[in-house]
This record gives sequence, structure tokens and C-alpha cells, in this order.
Amino acid sequence: MNRALSIRSSNRSSGTATSSTHSSTGGSHHGSTMTGGRRGFSLSSLRGTIQPELSKRLFKLIKSENNLVAAHETAGRERVSIATQLSEWGEQSGDDGISDVSDKVGVILSEMGEQEDNYAHALDDSRAVLKTIRNTEKSVQPSRDGRAKIADDIARLKAKEPESTRLVVLEQELVRAEAENMVAEAQLTNITRQKLKEAYTAEFLATIERADKQLILARHGLRLLALLDDTPVVPGDVSPHYPHAAQARQILNDAEDDLRDWRMAADGPDDGGDAAATPTSPKASIPPQQQPLSPKSDRGSLSGGQTVG
Amino acid sequence: MNRALSIRSSNRSSGTATSSTHSSTGGSHHGSTMTGGRRGFSLSSLRGTIQPELSKRLFKLIKSENNLVAAHETAGRERVSIATQLSEWGEQSGDDGISDVSDKVGVILSEMGEQEDNYAHALDDSRAVLKTIRNTEKSVQPSRDGRAKIADDIARLKAKEPESTRLVVLEQELVRAEAENMVAEAQLTNITRQKLKEAYTAEFLATIERADKQLILARHGLRLLALLDDTPVVPGDVSPHYPHAAQARQILNDAEDDLRDWRMAADGPDDGGDAAATPTSPKASIPPQQQPLSPKSDRGSLSGGQTVG
Repeated sequence: MNRALSIRSSNRSSGTATSSTHSSTGGSHHGSTMTGGRRGFSLSSLRGTIQPELSKRLFKLIKSENNLVAAHETAGRERVSIATQLSEWGEQSGDDGISDVSDKVGVILSEMGEQEDNYAHALDDSRAVLKTIRNTEKSVQPSRDGRAKIADDIARLKAKEPESTRLVVLEQELVRAEAENMVAEAQLTNITRQKLKEAYTAEFLATIERADKQLILARHGLRLLALLDDTPVVPGDVSPHYPHAAQARQILNDAEDDLRDWRMAADGPDDGGDAAATPTSPKASIPPQQQPLSPKSDRGSLSGGQTVG
Repeated sequence: MNRALSIRSSNRSSGTATSSTHSSTGGSHHGSTMTGGRRGFSLSSLRGTIQPELSKRLFKLIKSENNLVAAHETAGRERVSIATQLSEWGEQSGDDGISDVSDKVGVILSEMGEQEDNYAHALDDSRAVLKTIRNTEKSVQPSRDGRAKIADDIARLKAKEPESTRLVVLEQELVRAEAENMVAEAQLTNITRQKLKEAYTAEFLATIERADKQLILARHGLRLLALLDDTPVVPGDVSPHYPHAAQARQILNDAEDDLRDWRMAADGPDDGGDAAATPTSPKASIPPQQQPLSPKSDRGSLSGGQTVG
């Protein structure tokens, strides 16, 4: 098995930040050298986006996150559409078993689609948090540039006119710029750490919520399908007996109860091996026969609890 | 809470298949009346697709499933791309903690993307199963049409020439057509029940597998993020100490082990309330310090076990 404990293209030189050969992920391949706190700007950094160098990568990443959100939104929408189509296809079959099971499986699939949509929205919220980092990166760039420019000016002047009196002024300016930049870099570090943690913690929690809830739905979906007898019928007996309508409704009730009772497991971050949500006990709920169908709702809304405890 | 135990637009009249007012899910709204085994064909059934009436709905549903597959494929691809971008963004930060955590979170996200892609492929396989039903529907249509046509001819002839000798021949033809159709309908019922069950059982199992594995990954991802100290630093101390590199590698090892040990829970279909996969015990694995980074692999492949027990 191919172990990959890093997904970087280049072997990272840990410790100091003297990287230079990381492959670009699309767009311009700039040759920034971060030696001694100064940055060289290649021509290629002027091409492409108008983003400052520092926030370019995150700018692209946030765009990719947008594509990800859109993909999950589409998946949710298609899932809900398939659910309705499946139910209506089953209805025209004229087979009680297929009609009932396809309708109830449709309810489950529809709710799976809703969960996919919720996931997309959670990813979008996390994306907004990444923007805070990007905006800070953008605002720190002028500070870095200013400091680098003064250092460049000093180096150029030293080479041309080593005795120039302007050097003293420039050295003073550099000290001020370094102080200003030091604050900016600390702000960047703080925002980056806090918001990186916040954004991806939110994504992982959303992943857990979607996984838990879709697990609940898929397991009840399997129970529904198990009600459909698929032993072959002989010609003339085209509409086999289907005695499971009440059971099928009970399964939907169970699914609804399980979703409502779902809570985020409190031990999430520290307990990596246990994939279980709060285990739910069997419900002693009202017999479902009394429940009227809801013909007005055009898609299933087994709206489960959204609580994150 | 709005209970929806059916997702059909119309209130289904259970038992007999005399539905008439189901709303169309896009496309032509045909007014087929399924009374007494005969079908009226409206003009609108000639518009749109060239699919026979019977397989039209499933034809559309299979198209929607294709959109669903594509959406999850896109989500998987974007996720893997984001993983690489995050890792490379973190590298240029010059902050050891951000660099290491973003790289390892990237590995986790990349594997989540792989699981999303596996899910898309499983959905595509299930879609192929639905095609078997559609193809049978298509092949049963001429049998239904033939029988209906003879019955129509008889009715027409009886009205025009009640004494016609052709009536006897037509009645005989009708009996033969009914016998042939009876076999065709039984075949359709059998294929539909078997394949409906097979297709959506596969979808639900794939949903469970993706959910279980993404749960494992998300939980270990949260552990990684917890290693990142986000207490604010003061200006001048821009590269806070990061002592957790070994721990971070161990978390990736744990994730890899958990994925490899994953098995489909055998009690799936009958145990709706328990959202847990086989619980995995804490691993006593080899210290990760000996593991070299794999710079050649350009995306993480924590390839977990695919076994379905």
C-alpha cells in the first residue's frame, strides 16, 4: 500500500520556510524566495489574477470551495428530484408493493437530498470563514511590500552612493516599516490559525452530521426494501400480495424519530475510532395507521433535529 | 412538524391502479387512463422523447441519476483539488504549525474526495441496474399495445358491423394476445421488483460505506485541527512553537488503519436505529517517525479497505 503522509508535490523542508520548488496548482508559477524576510517578485506574479501574491492561493482555493458547494447543492437537488420521480414511477406500475415501497424509499431519498443540501450550506459557511484569512492576507501584503521596497532602496543606494545622507533616513524608515510589519505578520498568524481551525472544524462537523443522518436514512431505506418480496410470480398473478403497508409507515416514523433524536457526539474531536452517533433506542411511537398522508407537501420533509450539542 | 409519509403530489388511491392526476415531473403531462387494462394515448405522448409510454418515467429518472453521479464526481474532484491547494497554501505560510496541519488535513480531505468518487461510481452501477427495468418496460410495451389494439378493433367492429364474421377471428386473436401479455406482465413485475430492490439496496449500501468512511476521516481531521494552537501570539513571535509533528503523523496512521479495518456492518438492513459501523479499537501501530514522506505521490492515497463483509 502506498503510504502518502503528505500531499505536497515537493518534499517539504521542515522547520524554516525556505521552500522554493512547490508546483503551482494552476495559474502562474512564481519563483518567490522567502529568504531573510525579503521577497523577490517575478514578472509572472503580475499575470493572471489581480490578487496580491500573498492571497493568490487562498483566492483560488476559495473558488474551488465554491465549486464544491455547487456540486453538493446539485447532488441534493437531483436526489430530491429522483425521489419524486421514483415515487411517481412506482405509482403507475399498478403493483401495490412497488408503489408503496418506491413511495417510501422516495421519502428517504428526498430526505437524503435535504441533508446533502444542508451539507452544501455548511460548506458555504466554512468558505466564508476562509475569506477572513484571505482578506487579512490581502491587507498584510502592502506592509510586506513597503518593507521590502525600503530594504531594496537601501541596497541600491548603498551600491550607487554609499556615502549618501539619505541612507540614514531610509534606515529609520526601515525600522518603522519593520515594526509595522511585525504587527501585521502577528495579526496574520493569529487570524490564519484561528480561522483555518474554525473553517475546517466546521467542515468536518458538517461531514459528521451528514454522514450520521444519511446513515440513519440508508439503514431505514434498507429496511423498506426488505419489505418488497422479489420471489418470481407466475403469469396471471401479476399483482402479488403486499401486506407490509403499516410496517413501511412505521419505518418512516422510526427514521423521523431517529433524525429528530440525533445529536452531535460530544466526544467527536478526541475519539477518532468510534464512528457512532448517539445510539438511538427503539421507539414506542403511536401506531402510524392514524396518520393521514400529506398530499399537499410535494416533497418529503422528515425534518430532523439540527441541534449540534 | 410537518409529517410527510408520501412524496407523491396526489393522494394515492391505494389498491387499484386507477390513478389519473399525478403531476408530471418535467416534460409532457400525459393523461393516460389505466382503466380495465386499456390505455388511452394522448397526442402529447408522441411529443418529447421517443421512449414508449411505459418506460418514459424511468428513462427520465435514469437521466437524473446520471446528473447525480456527475455531481458527486465533481464534488470528489473538487475536494481532492482543494486538498492539494490547502497543503500548498499552508507550506508558503512559513508557519510550522499551519504548514504541517494544513498538509495533513489535506491528506484527510483528499481521501474524503476519493470516497466521494467511489460513491459516484457505486451510484453509476446502481443506475445500470435500473436500465434493466427500463429495457423490460420497453419490450413489454408492444405486447400491451397489441392487446389494446385488438380490443379496440373488436369494439369498433361490434359498433359498426355487429354480425361480422371477423369478430370471431379477432376474439381468438385477443385471447392469444392476452395470454402473451400475461406472461410479459409477469416478467415485468418480476424484473421490476428484483431490480428495484437490487438498485436501491446498492445505493443505500454505498451511502453507508461513504458515510462510515467519511466519519472516520472527519473525526481524525478534527483531531488534527486540535493540534493547532490558536492562542494569539504577540508581534515579534510570528512563528509559534509547533511540537506536534509526530502526533499529526500518528493521526494519519490511525485514519489509515481505521479505513483498512472498516467492514460493512452485517446487521445493516434490520437494525435501523444503530448508526455505528464496526467499532474500531485504538491501534498500537508502529511509531510514525520512521515513515518517510512520499514526495512522489501528488495526492494522498490513504487507500482504505473496500471489503464489504
